[in-house]
Amino acid sequence: MVKANPERALRDLYELREMGRYKTGVHRPTLSPEDVASRRWLAAKLADIGHSATIDGIANVFGRAPGAGPHVLAGSHIESQNQSGWLDGALGVIYALEAARAVAEDPAMAGRGVDVIAFVDEEGHFGQFLGSYSFAGQLDEATIDAATDRSGRGPMRSLLGEAGLAGVPRVTMDPARYRAFFEAHIEQGRRLEAEGLTIGVVTSIIAIWQYKITVEGAQNHAGTTTMAERRDAGTAMMRIWHRIEERFPDVIGQHSVWTVGRTELTPGAPSIIPGLAEMLFQFRDAEMEVLERLHEALAAIVAEVDAEGPCTARLTQLARPMPGRMDPSLQAALLASGEALTPGQTLVMPSAAGHDAQIMSQHVPSAMMFVPSIGGVSHHWTEDTSDADIKDGAAVFVDAIARVLAADGG
Amino acid sequence: MVKANPERALRDLYELREMGRYKTGVHRPTLSPEDVASRRWLAAKLADIGHSATIDGIANVFGRAPGAGPHVLAGSHIESQNQSGWLDGALGVIYALEAARAVAEDPAMAGRGVDVIAFVDEEGHFGQFLGSYSFAGQLDEATIDAATDRSGRGPMRSLLGEAGLAGVPRVTMDPARYRAFFEAHIEQGRRLEAEGLTIGVVTSIIAIWQYKITVEGAQNHAGTTTMAERRDAGTAMMRIWHRIEERFPDVIGQHSVWTVGRTELTPGAPSIIPGLAEMLFQFRDAEMEVLERLHEALAAIVAEVDAEGPCTARLTQLARPMPGRMDPSLQAALLASGEALTPGQTLVMPSAAGHDAQIMSQHVPSAMMFVPSIGGVSHHWTEDTSDADIKDGAAVFVDAIARVLAADGG
Repeated sequence: MVKANPERALRDLYELREMGRYKTGVHRPTLSPEDVASRRWLAAKLADIGHSATIDGIANVFGRAPGAGPHVLAGSHIESQNQSGWLDGALGVIYALEAARAVAEDPAMAGRGVDVIAFVDEEGHFGQFLGSYSFAGQLDEATIDAATDRSGRGPMRSLLGEAGLAGVPRVTMDPARYRAFFEAHIEQGRRLEAEGLTIGVVTSIIAIWQYKITVEGAQNHAGTTTMAERRDAGTAMMRIWHRIEERFPDVIGQHSVWTVGRTELTPGAPSIIPGLAEMLFQFRDAEMEVLERLHEALAAIVAEVDAEGPCTARLTQLARPMPGRMDPSLQAALLASGEALTPGQTLVMPSAAGHDAQIMSQHVPSAMMFVPSIGGVSHHWTEDTSDADIKDGAAVFVDAIARVLAADGG
Repeated sequence: MVKANPERALRDLYELREMGRYKTGVHRPTLSPEDVASRRWLAAKLADIGHSATIDGIANVFGRAPGAGPHVLAGSHIESQNQSGWLDGALGVIYALEAARAVAEDPAMAGRGVDVIAFVDEEGHFGQFLGSYSFAGQLDEATIDAATDRSGRGPMRSLLGEAGLAGVPRVTMDPARYRAFFEAHIEQGRRLEAEGLTIGVVTSIIAIWQYKITVEGAQNHAGTTTMAERRDAGTAMMRIWHRIEERFPDVIGQHSVWTVGRTELTPGAPSIIPGLAEMLFQFRDAEMEVLERLHEALAAIVAEVDAEGPCTARLTQLARPMPGRMDPSLQAALLASGEALTPGQTLVMPSAAGHDAQIMSQHVPSAMMFVPSIGGVSHHWTEDTSDADIKDGAAVFVDAIARVLAADGG
């Protein structure tokens, strides 16, 4: 019978935290030296258990299990946000590694196997789900050519080159190979903790629709240009922002959230009227109907401010993914494993954060499992999960994958 | 009789433009290699006419005229904003140089003289009027220690060191030496052009009150943190901004202007709720009473948003200068010279931009003269003034200084 070794998974997570450690968390942005080191470390771990392990041309780490099958694919992302938490996606990568090991160690599973994937840049330093889109065969070279680090570390191509990956081919998946994709992740919210539970079984993953709003006015002197003469791009941008906050509460769904994450006035000097203003805006929901309604409301606000003048305002949609529906039979497998190993500790819930599983779910039946986040903290170095929860999560995750592999006659 | 050589002044301006030339303008930020070169060039020009010329410990260029007096001080600033206009303050520096030369060349003026000053950093790359405050004896070393370039070129101390000015003493003025301070500058607005006039005689210089508004919330995940749980520093900052735009029209004076020149959300990522938001805000007026009223309105808005929660908001006043009153008898001298040399071409007007003369006017009777800006363009490389206007301005400026020197028995 397949059995996880949760202590071993925990030791791996501790070891991985040392790559880019920052206080009790990590600073391991995509393609940083620490991130590249962690990818090499993972590839070596996969090779150790007989997987064919590669780091491909976009830095996805892929470990292909030997054997005729059936196979499950499991994984998440290994890089972190800047100065961020130590678990986040790394937890899901190590759970996948543990599942691959546990299945490989069980003679009854001969021929069956767990392929392991660590997708690159789920955290969006360079783009939106570049790793999972690439693995799914949905990413062209031009998108990589254009990708640049949001924190100013340079073009993705340069960092791939520094990692020795220039010219290396990218690996795309064969969906027919897989019975399922499994991803584990920390919850990044407070629901499990608030209800005193350990395992979250995800029903659907919200989609994040991302926008850039660009306002163009006229750069001018902040003293000699009268208020009437001004075409202040900053003030026009603020009017868009204010109307979003005023009107969105009337059009949202029950779980919708929206965020202005970044603003920039150009040239950004105290005595110059901004001639250009940009803002990054996103909203999230699990229902297409709600997403489309929010899009309409946003487009109307931007068009309205554009029509009012004296500045022009333009809306650019950067990403418009579908919400990710998790497969019901795989949810049932996770629930059965949860009930067997952590009785009464399981919660069925949507995911309020985006994950690679939403890309994978368009190609392969997919499942997603959460463990609790202490205080709901995420994307900050204080993010944490108790050792007990980490170990319980590993056991349930591995058990559910084993159920799927065993149920399948091969 | 003292007579300017306007062609010579124009040639000097063309020569000066080549130091840091950018398209038809210049990129000569404070203490850049090009700026330092222009200061050395000016000091050499001053030495050529027998002035004792120094570049002091903050990079003010000061040329002290020989002779027992009486003396007038004249000048402006020589550095530019980034990728900006070729005239701006450089025009006033060259007019001052021309006045010094013309007075030195006139035997009837023996003993009298024009000291020339090129104040450092009027453009505010590092601070607020650092050069004129230093020359006025109102700047301590700690302020220079803390000054850092807003465009990321590093601390002022480092750049002073690179210019060979580390440890060089600063020069402070002796107000008793001067009958007057004269500054010339481009108008940076459209009033002279709109009325088809050549010479602006300034009555008062508006004061710029500068603020930093800091909002603190809680950085968190933009998906898993519900709208009700959020402490979004960006949205709270936007509420302050919106209320400023709503309420300022009711409390301003006739010529007040206000500007949000820069905003920054931290960490500034699309999927992270900003935990910190900062905005640079300024307003301008020539009346203390109006300035104080605007300050009260601003403080009330910030206190209100702070009290409403869930974020804290704090107002920091970065600069609170007095408006600069120009001396009436010196205005009369400029008007008389304008009437003599460019009859019917003179306009009496306030200055909507800040200038070193507002600092000088607290110590010495001061005067300020404008020439037209084509299209009102300022702080942009397309800024320009016609050669004819540049030459007329030089003639009037020099004549007015000669009047003041001649009127004084010495």
